[in-house]
Amino acid sequence: MIVTLCGGVGAARFLAGAVQIMDPREITAIVNTGDDLVLHGLSISPDLDTVSYTLAGLNNTETGWGVTGESWRAMQRLGDLGGDAWFALGDLDLATHLFRSQLLAQGLTLAEATNALRRAMGIEVNLLPMSNDRVATKVTRRDTGDELDFQDYFVRHHHEPRLRSIRFEGAERATPGPGVLDALRDATRVVIAPSNPLVSLGPILAVPGIAEALRARRTETIAISPIVAGAALKGPAADMLSDLGHEVSVLGVARLYAPYAETFIIDAQDAHHEAGVVELGMKCIVTNTVMETPQIAAHLARVAMGDAS
Amino acid sequence: MIVTLCGGVGAARFLAGAVQIMDPREITAIVNTGDDLVLHGLSISPDLDTVSYTLAGLNNTETGWGVTGESWRAMQRLGDLGGDAWFALGDLDLATHLFRSQLLAQGLTLAEATNALRRAMGIEVNLLPMSNDRVATKVTRRDTGDELDFQDYFVRHHHEPRLRSIRFEGAERATPGPGVLDALRDATRVVIAPSNPLVSLGPILAVPGIAEALRARRTETIAISPIVAGAALKGPAADMLSDLGHEVSVLGVARLYAPYAETFIIDAQDAHHEAGVVELGMKCIVTNTVMETPQIAAHLARVAMGDAS
Repeated sequence: MIVTLCGGVGAARFLAGAVQIMDPREITAIVNTGDDLVLHGLSISPDLDTVSYTLAGLNNTETGWGVTGESWRAMQRLGDLGGDAWFALGDLDLATHLFRSQLLAQGLTLAEATNALRRAMGIEVNLLPMSNDRVATKVTRRDTGDELDFQDYFVRHHHEPRLRSIRFEGAERATPGPGVLDALRDATRVVIAPSNPLVSLGPILAVPGIAEALRARRTETIAISPIVAGAALKGPAADMLSDLGHEVSVLGVARLYAPYAETFIIDAQDAHHEAGVVELGMKCIVTNTVMETPQIAAHLARVAMGDAS
Repeated sequence: MIVTLCGGVGAARFLAGAVQIMDPREITAIVNTGDDLVLHGLSISPDLDTVSYTLAGLNNTETGWGVTGESWRAMQRLGDLGGDAWFALGDLDLATHLFRSQLLAQGLTLAEATNALRRAMGIEVNLLPMSNDRVATKVTRRDTGDELDFQDYFVRHHHEPRLRSIRFEGAERATPGPGVLDALRDATRVVIAPSNPLVSLGPILAVPGIAEALRARRTETIAISPIVAGAALKGPAADMLSDLGHEVSVLGVARLYAPYAETFIIDAQDAHHEAGVVELGMKCIVTNTVMETPQIAAHLARVAMGDAS
């Protein structure tokens, strides 16, 4: 049994690679829910949805997010009405949120609703939200000192504001989702997917019990750097690392993951950092981590699983 | 200032007639919210929406409900996922519910959200929900004795079950929406629209204070029969009247409205009941009430306003 700790797009691509080389039922994905939001009354779980759409083959490969063949009639009308339309919800995507919101309203937990969506989409990977409890990532702008909800910063403000701090509201009272600690304990391999270490992995590790469980599996844990050649492949990870005083390089990420992962996978473009990673007490694997094709993703998964390292 | 007490389609057609013959800003519509529901996390107000879509010229004249040019991508996907799709929400219609739900989540009252939607749709008639408080129409099936939410009975069960009783949950604790009692007090004419007397007018009259305010204006109040030639033009009014022991005729309706309305408008097909209505202590007007065209609706409005009686 393999466990992957996941944010959004990078993790989704990694999982899409992993299911090509092993039985998807042997994979458990523990997914960040710190980005979740309630908007227009709907419960939206962006990282769970990105992972789900990708594993279901429904992901929009043109935009890099959302659902293939999407349309925008509800959102266009909402904009015409003067409603909040900054968080784009396509007509097909809306069905996911309607489904989840209805199940939650009926009293199901987020884990149960996620499992129902997983089955409905024909996904065989075991998808676990990090917690059934509400954990909300909040960021404080450096310029104004205002605190923003994560999606407000990320989507509405196009992750342009520089940040002073990040916190995970509710994390201290949250408990790991059902199966999360068991999966970490029983895994033969734990993979920290190439996701944002601060706002994808950060919330997961902030749920009491998960960081401890992960540290106990350091030998079996391998992390993949989301930073390649000093930049993030996608999203604000580089700016965030810089804002919060971390080095924007694979070494900056390695320092964050060294307590949890014995092994660190870096891209061939960062091969010159190999010795630096080793100095941090980690094994270092250098390979192609930029998952531009399903073949590269499958190869990366094979490396991470230890079959081709 | 004219006040109309409204359910859905019949009231909407009447109002569409009324705005042809007078300044829409002189019309206040007090609308039933007993049919409202929260579904998939969304706050849905079917009667307010029917009235709004009709007054905005957005109503689907082919189906008789919903929005013109509607599409069903979200609902089809929701059905594919195995979600509850019995209450059909078109992509454009969804925008209304997203907008309302967001405003309510932001702390606006239903009256404030209704006013925002009204302005967004360019509607000049003053639309007032009967109450900001939740009043939920519940019906008890005669066969099983089970109590159903109104939309469960009306939509999911196609209003086929025969009924033992109807109640308006929460009505006893509800207060009239802002402006409702003032509008009734100040109106030069009050029109009870051709709506279901039991489940459209019933909830409005069940809100403490409204029935009393209406009785105080009996002289200025005129009701339009929703029953024509012993049948309902639309919906389950005839079956409901029968189930609950009322005569399924204009006389059955007249008995319900006699305490509130001095004048009763019946269709020419029911002219033979004129004397019976008068015996109940009401004035009776016989005209064409079947609003098959905007012209007929405008004529009916003119009759109701007292300009052509």
